Amino acid sequence: MGTSKALESVLSAGELPVNIKFLIEGEEEIGSPNLGEFISNNQDLLKCDFALNPDTGMIAPDLPTITYALRGLAYFEVRIDGPDHDLHSGIYGGVVHNPAQALCELIAGMHDEDGAVTLPGFYDRVRKIDGDERAELSRLPMGEDFYLKQTGAPSLWGERKYSPVERVGARPTLEINGIYSGFIGEGSKTVLPAWAMAKISTRLVPDQDPDEVHQQLIQYLKDNTPETVTFKVSILVGSPASISDQQSTGVKAMQTAMQQVWGKKPLFRREGGSVPVVVLFMDLLRVDSVNCGFSLPDDNAHSPNEKLHLPTWNNGIDTIIHFIYNLAE
Amino acid sequence: MGTSKALESVLSAGELPVNIKFLIEGEEEIGSPNLGEFISNNQDLLKCDFALNPDTGMIAPDLPTITYALRGLAYFEVRIDGPDHDLHSGIYGGVVHNPAQALCELIAGMHDEDGAVTLPGFYDRVRKIDGDERAELSRLPMGEDFYLKQTGAPSLWGERKYSPVERVGARPTLEINGIYSGFIGEGSKTVLPAWAMAKISTRLVPDQDPDEVHQQLIQYLKDNTPETVTFKVSILVGSPASISDQQSTGVKAMQTAMQQVWGKKPLFRREGGSVPVVVLFMDLLRVDSVNCGFSLPDDNAHSPNEKLHLPTWNNGIDTIIHFIYNLAE
Repeated sequence: MGTSKALESVLSAGELPVNIKFLIEGEEEIGSPNLGEFISNNQDLLKCDFALNPDTGMIAPDLPTITYALRGLAYFEVRIDGPDHDLHSGIYGGVVHNPAQALCELIAGMHDEDGAVTLPGFYDRVRKIDGDERAELSRLPMGEDFYLKQTGAPSLWGERKYSPVERVGARPTLEINGIYSGFIGEGSKTVLPAWAMAKISTRLVPDQDPDEVHQQLIQYLKDNTPETVTFKVSILVGSPASISDQQSTGVKAMQTAMQQVWGKKPLFRREGGSVPVVVLFMDLLRVDSVNCGFSLPDDNAHSPNEKLHLPTWNNGIDTIIHFIYNLAE
Repeated sequence: MGTSKALESVLSAGELPVNIKFLIEGEEEIGSPNLGEFISNNQDLLKCDFALNPDTGMIAPDLPTITYALRGLAYFEVRIDGPDHDLHSGIYGGVVHNPAQALCELIAGMHDEDGAVTLPGFYDRVRKIDGDERAELSRLPMGEDFYLKQTGAPSLWGERKYSPVERVGARPTLEINGIYSGFIGEGSKTVLPAWAMAKISTRLVPDQDPDEVHQQLIQYLKDNTPETVTFKVSILVGSPASISDQQSTGVKAMQTAMQQVWGKKPLFRREGGSVPVVVLFMDLLRVDSVNCGFSLPDDNAHSPNEKLHLPTWNNGIDTIIHFIYNLAE
């Protein structure tokens, strides 16, 4: 790691120009089950003017990025039960509804032919993006080619009426995170499984409510599950989306810091991921967050061979230092 | 175990009235990968007048049963690939086709609304059952209540135009034996999986051909897989159905033996399971099999807590002894 001018100036100054409180959490990937209670119980300790949240990313090493909107998350487990025990698929195949098949039929119906989610009322509270914002988002260098390269998918998919960058940032989605039933080892076993399970999550945008989406999923399953099987559904994580003021003191200090380090204005974008603490800070501490970060799209986040790009990481360190000094001015 | 009169008479006679060759195999549950070659290479050793195959079952302890038809099996593994690595469902959810969802959509399309299999040409070679046989099958005490009790399913399912006993015995079916994708552990992980897999098997009736069904599945996947994902399919087991002569010497000897032990005529039925050796004996040794067996529908075959009913098992031993003596007469 090279020693930057910004870092040198901090070391020579000997002290920080503003007060900083750190809140470090290790449970975000399992839905932050204790964070809300901790913040709620320690509001005086955590009192601040605004929060810096370094959990988003950049579009490319030469494109510093501020994220002004994050999607929410509602994560569910759905289980389908059919016969009361595993059956022999020869002796009983043809007289009972295979629970894995029934689950597939239910999942297949959760999107229509245009890639839209079919849960009843799912889009009722979705805040529309206006023409100005669509125009701004369309200037981001994140077109079809960008997403084809990042994902390695044979071709893209999704809501036809929206561009890829709108689909991951400004539109809600529904994903199958996992599915299981029966025999999945090597070779063959002629079981007709008694049950099947799927992990299904929705990414939410303002002003969707995770508990309402939970009710919408229950309603969908009530409306569509045949009498040949039964369903159970539970919500594992629920956190709404967030959207922040692009003109706040914190955002302006970060904008300047990025310009100082990269020599160019940062891009403003919506991000598809979810950072529940941003919503908790808004609700419990009444403070806005500045969302930035120095990871890159090809870092393989949440995948094997996850990496960090060190030159970008070093620029990020310099950016945070400039940000702190900009704030003090 | 009680000592039966039949067993006592064998023990006092001191020798068997006919020659018996035993062929014992331990690979049936994995598709008998070596049995065909063994039989083919040992045709002189295995030469016989007919075969007794004790691998089917009875309808109830007081209803001795001879199975004259067995379904065949074609067992496949299907894999759907989308992105070239696992993705973060927030960052990329909405721009790529989730492979688990794509697999569900393909599986959902494999049956129509009447419960019929939609693989192209699947029913073309299915031998029809005539009115006499339907009437005979309808006399078996295996109606809806029987199958509801045996399976514990909330309600039955399947091809609407056929009775349950016809659906499991005389009609081909397609089952999902297993399905897997992504994260299936406890809790939540927001992965958008790179691939999904299913074990899919078909039970076949005369005169369907397993290799033809393999081609039909490939054709279905070619016709229905969108360009957003790719598919691979392999056949793991392939064995055609069998149907035997109800008037052969062996069947008549068994019919009499069952009457001697149970005091009533046996029922004749088709069974939904597959016993590949019956087909191999027919093709390689040119001999018919007498298919019977002394397991019961509630034995939980291929499931946890599999059992045998000992009084029925003892009657079965007596039946085999009578069968051997009947043959000699």
